[in-house]
Amino acid sequence: MNAPLKALEGSGARPSGAKGASDLPALMRQIGRDARTAARVLALAPAVQKNRALAAMAKAIRAGSSAILAANREDQAEARAAGATPAFLDRLALDPERIAAMADGIEAVRKLKDPVGWVMASWRRPNGMRIERVRVPLGVVGVIYESRPNVTADAAALCLKAGNAAILRGGSESFRSCRAIHAALLEGLAEAGLPASCVALVPTREREAVGMMLSGLDGTIDVIVPRGGKNLVERVQTEARVPVFAHLEGVCHVYVDGKAKLGMAKSIVLNAKMRRTGVCGAAETLLVDRAGAAKLLKPLITMLLDAGCEVRGDAAVMAVDRRVKPASKEDWSTEYLDAVLTAGVVDGIDAAIAHIERYGSHHTDAIITEDRKAAEKFLREVDSAIVLHNASTQFADGGEFGFGAEIGIATGRLHARGPVGVEQLTSFNYRIRGSGQTRP
Amino acid sequence: MNAPLKALEGSGARPSGAKGASDLPALMRQIGRDARTAARVLALAPAVQKNRALAAMAKAIRAGSSAILAANREDQAEARAAGATPAFLDRLALDPERIAAMADGIEAVRKLKDPVGWVMASWRRPNGMRIERVRVPLGVVGVIYESRPNVTADAAALCLKAGNAAILRGGSESFRSCRAIHAALLEGLAEAGLPASCVALVPTREREAVGMMLSGLDGTIDVIVPRGGKNLVERVQTEARVPVFAHLEGVCHVYVDGKAKLGMAKSIVLNAKMRRTGVCGAAETLLVDRAGAAKLLKPLITMLLDAGCEVRGDAAVMAVDRRVKPASKEDWSTEYLDAVLTAGVVDGIDAAIAHIERYGSHHTDAIITEDRKAAEKFLREVDSAIVLHNASTQFADGGEFGFGAEIGIATGRLHARGPVGVEQLTSFNYRIRGSGQTRP
Repeated sequence: MNAPLKALEGSGARPSGAKGASDLPALMRQIGRDARTAARVLALAPAVQKNRALAAMAKAIRAGSSAILAANREDQAEARAAGATPAFLDRLALDPERIAAMADGIEAVRKLKDPVGWVMASWRRPNGMRIERVRVPLGVVGVIYESRPNVTADAAALCLKAGNAAILRGGSESFRSCRAIHAALLEGLAEAGLPASCVALVPTREREAVGMMLSGLDGTIDVIVPRGGKNLVERVQTEARVPVFAHLEGVCHVYVDGKAKLGMAKSIVLNAKMRRTGVCGAAETLLVDRAGAAKLLKPLITMLLDAGCEVRGDAAVMAVDRRVKPASKEDWSTEYLDAVLTAGVVDGIDAAIAHIERYGSHHTDAIITEDRKAAEKFLREVDSAIVLHNASTQFADGGEFGFGAEIGIATGRLHARGPVGVEQLTSFNYRIRGSGQTRP
Repeated sequence: MNAPLKALEGSGARPSGAKGASDLPALMRQIGRDARTAARVLALAPAVQKNRALAAMAKAIRAGSSAILAANREDQAEARAAGATPAFLDRLALDPERIAAMADGIEAVRKLKDPVGWVMASWRRPNGMRIERVRVPLGVVGVIYESRPNVTADAAALCLKAGNAAILRGGSESFRSCRAIHAALLEGLAEAGLPASCVALVPTREREAVGMMLSGLDGTIDVIVPRGGKNLVERVQTEARVPVFAHLEGVCHVYVDGKAKLGMAKSIVLNAKMRRTGVCGAAETLLVDRAGAAKLLKPLITMLLDAGCEVRGDAAVMAVDRRVKPASKEDWSTEYLDAVLTAGVVDGIDAAIAHIERYGSHHTDAIITEDRKAAEKFLREVDSAIVLHNASTQFADGGEFGFGAEIGIATGRLHARGPVGVEQLTSFNYRIRGSGQTRP
């Protein structure tokens, strides 16, 4: 399901007007410096100005629809000629509906509350000083993505809302589409009187640009967000010399406790696995408590098989339906992103938690049970970004959390964990108001 | 004032019982794995158990005082023989008072509120799901420090309180002292039934161990905290492949606005510069508003010179007192950590802010003024971890913030910024309680 990293790096074909390879480091450094300068302007820009830019961006995307579609047709033709898969071509393709969705997405971000300037905490010290912890922008966000051109608009809007400059590097197959979308974004910035460098698009397909971004461009990039398949994320996590907000994979579990209601278990398991199989919050492993297996296991497995899901199971699971295939050792830690599930029977909640800690990816895991104590234990002891009781793992999404929009989901433990929305794209500082206090 | 990095890396002398160099990678990887396992135990340990360990640690440090002092005398003798400076020897030296302070410090950390399990935010979604954002430990904290042996106890206590395992690597000159303190910490862990690997001390002086920690020990270290001089911090920031909580330097400014009261300006400037010159929150640069210079400049500069502070100034500052030396270009961005100050006259608050952004280190900066609007502008526009109005920069300290204790001050923009206390040593996750919700 993932575009290969090669796709990101492209053919090396040079867009007309791009500089020679020898200029690339200088070009990239200049982009970094300009982004840093723009970030300072954006950090102090009032909410109304950022919102004006966002509104104008959405408008310009709608107005530029035919130019964007024309650019996209060229990208598609080139990718098709290069033998791209249908799935890849689908991710690359834009149509009027997808363009409208992009503009709507920008509008949705515009309507979010501005996170900059929020007082997160405030307290008075015994000496009378008042300390405030206030949200400020992070700075410069580097976004590295693959074939989906809409990331250009989505990521730029979120970064801008949080007061951050963005340096965007799209997949080379979508180069023309990204450029056309970027042109619309620049119109929006200009209309609001914001510098064009607030949203930079790396203006070349040269693959070395990615490595330069991962090095941080002389300290000008504060954080990198990769958007794409596992190969891209893995490369970014391995090579980046700056912090990364990402998850490598979502090996998400549903544990059906012995005290689960069958009806609820069925609807949650079906939704968690089959609603959309290609999202990171899709369940990949089903664990059933041995204590409830007699009642729960067969109906759950049959339901999944009947719904068109391949099931790979341990001996106990294989015993309930002939269609179940044997699970290999690798299956337990595999993210299928497809209508395939590994299923096993475990000896109670402690075994379930131990299994999840061993084979999971600390992304999203759920327990289904009517036993409140078991639920609380699971919520407390499973060390994942998102842990749910009696709800589908497919809720692992910034929109579903009420964040309005997200730039991705992070499984790292620092700064951002779980959905990364506008709040997670901010930092903070301390502001202290005194009346002449000195330290004894 | 800073111990050179060489001090950290030491002579390469091998403590008896340490493994050969060929085993070092294996030894360090094992320490990492053990710490990861211990972190899982600690993450689920109740507050009362962690507090029991802390109390027992403090007790064991007091009880072990003579053994610690004996080890320290050996360290001192070796350092003296190797020609260490008096300042270095002072940092290395322990006495009964410093040992008591270490034990008191652990007790103070014990009394802090346990940050783990705090519900930082909680909200209900339209579909009835309740989402909680809950503090959890960060995981494994690597601490790399230099000559001060007390960091062994201070860092271990803070990490433990926040539920983190710690891997400590002290300076090789304080190797015996650190080992003796560590032995007392292990007693405390044992008494509380916690694994010894909750607090690991790298059991060798081999310098390669530092580089291995900076590589993250196969992903087992979540964050590195360097404690020591600029050379150490610089090396850690440059080489670390894991996040770092640190500040390279504190080039802190006091801007005396035209509308400052002279009396308050004098007491804050004197305190900010001279209370302790060697701390990172000490002021290094004084900026005086041209609009108030006639009234403010001479008294401030004379006061500093009379207090024994060397003043390096621009032309305007040199004109008020013959003792002022000319400031070189480098002076404006120099952290003296000594009784030296650079002083200049600027054209109002905008020039002051521009100067601070250009020459400062984004650590701590203050404005002195009776003009509320100017103060608010300064607090909003100066992009430093800590910004103060009418208070001394020397308040840049976790204790002064009410954090109880700090492991350091960070100028990075991700996760922790400003004083790093127990709260900053935690991460969080999302816990969702549903009643059968599936995603449409």
